[in-house]
Amino acid sequence: MEKVKLGPQTLLYPMPAVLVGSKVAEKPNFMTAAWCGIAAHKPPAVSVALRKERHTLKGVKEQGTFSINVASADLVKKVDYIGIYSGKDRDKSQIFETFYGILKTAPLIRECPLNLECKVIHLLDLDSHTLVVGEIIETYISESCLTDGKADPEKVDPLVYTPGARKYQRLGDVIGKAYQVGKDATL
Amino acid sequence: MEKVKLGPQTLLYPMPAVLVGSKVAEKPNFMTAAWCGIAAHKPPAVSVALRKERHTLKGVKEQGTFSINVASADLVKKVDYIGIYSGKDRDKSQIFETFYGILKTAPLIRECPLNLECKVIHLLDLDSHTLVVGEIIETYISESCLTDGKADPEKVDPLVYTPGARKYQRLGDVIGKAYQVGKDATL
Repeated sequence: MEKVKLGPQTLLYPMPAVLVGSKVAEKPNFMTAAWCGIAAHKPPAVSVALRKERHTLKGVKEQGTFSINVASADLVKKVDYIGIYSGKDRDKSQIFETFYGILKTAPLIRECPLNLECKVIHLLDLDSHTLVVGEIIETYISESCLTDGKADPEKVDPLVYTPGARKYQRLGDVIGKAYQVGKDATL
Repeated sequence: MEKVKLGPQTLLYPMPAVLVGSKVAEKPNFMTAAWCGIAAHKPPAVSVALRKERHTLKGVKEQGTFSINVASADLVKKVDYIGIYSGKDRDKSQIFETFYGILKTAPLIRECPLNLECKVIHLLDLDSHTLVVGEIIETYISESCLTDGKADPEKVDPLVYTPGARKYQRLGDVIGKAYQVGKDATL
């Protein structure tokens, strides 16, 4: 398999397309982020990279709280709209119905099937971005996305972001069970 | 949309299923990781959460380098095998053909379509995990996965990990172009 060098690229497949929420000047504000991942099991933690000039980051720093909202595929237009326009220029507080949880200051999106309510535990200063690491204080899921009391990814129908091609996709064919297909595999 | 609280959960959709490589005791070692994301544009950086007892983390710390290898769907059995068994117990150096790049000490997997060669820039100590932040020094792609000189996600055919359900999936239907479907959307 011949390899080609592309130079340093921020390429990873797949990426999520989540909405990050924070309270800025007493209003909920949201931005779209693909650079988001789980950071630890204990404490349950998530990391998200926010460009330093982001309006949302201002709120994250002021309040010390934020939310990660996993969008479903049917919200694609709103997610993209929120990704295109800044809260500095457009009031994005009315696009979704928001609610608050335990922390009181992290706006959560009711229409999004899965919501992580987070408290900032680290702000890692990189050059272009601040890597925000938050402890997940509570997880909310839409009742309609549960099967036997557990999150059902098919019902969540999460939006997938594909960088480079800049496309939104759905989850596709299931090709195997984890911790199973590799057992005693002939490699 | 009625919400149910699940308690703090490390739930995010989708996740990648990458292979993290490092050199341990002069041998390439690999582990499977889903908790991986891009951390910054400048420097181009990636973050990956590694449990502290991980054999791979030992190599990351000793060498100060590591690799992130994006697996294609056809590698699902090997990826899962590597996720199940530890390098402490099984020699995983022969499962893939490895090569080295600029840094000389970060083993890269030839069979994986996309490889990020990384230099450690931060080790963030969380309780269960160390969040390793690495600068991407070079990106390698299999020539067969390019279209007009750019990474083609359809050809990469990346493995997607779905937590909770613990399934491996493929990318699914394209539902829109980013920075386009949200323009002048009726919200």
